[in-house]
Amino acid sequence: MAEDNTIYVGKKPVMSYVLAVVTQFNQGIPEVHLKARGRSISTAVDTTQIVKNRFIQTLQLKDIKLSTEELKSDDGTMTRVSSMSIVMTK
Amino acid sequence: MAEDNTIYVGKKPVMSYVLAVVTQFNQGIPEVHLKARGRSISTAVDTTQIVKNRFIQTLQLKDIKLSTEELKSDDGTMTRVSSMSIVMTK
Repeated sequence: MAEDNTIYVGKKPVMSYVLAVVTQFNQGIPEVHLKARGRSISTAVDTTQIVKNRFIQTLQLKDIKLSTEELKSDDGTMTRVSSMSIVMTK
Repeated sequence: MAEDNTIYVGKKPVMSYVLAVVTQFNQGIPEVHLKARGRSISTAVDTTQIVKNRFIQTLQLKDIKLSTEELKSDDGTMTRVSSMSIVMTK
């Protein structure tokens, strides 16, 4: 998987991720990946729905994977966080 | 799809949904469905990961669907909300 077609969803407003996805498809990239962790998972799902309902009606969610990532906190302990990865094609 | 094997994820602590899923599987139900809307989508994903990592290592996420639901607000206007539906087997 190439890294340059991957959009990491975080705490920005959802429309900035929608714009990023639509821009990548408009540049001719056939497959765009969305990744999110923890609370941002809901934002990633919102992103797919807004892209599909308002911009690219033919959007397909080709693959959706859920997993657990281990992150090191500031105090050195490990925390587990859920993550989601979505592959979109149009 | 039978409705009695569907768990609706909302604003309770995540462990109450984990317990509900594990209980259903222990009762011999072969397929448990999780549904969530909006911000609760992250909690649904957390539920699947905790069930898999701590209770049922063989858990399979057989199907994950994302969609948009229209809800009527208190003032009568329609709002769109993202929703997620997950089918789990063990």
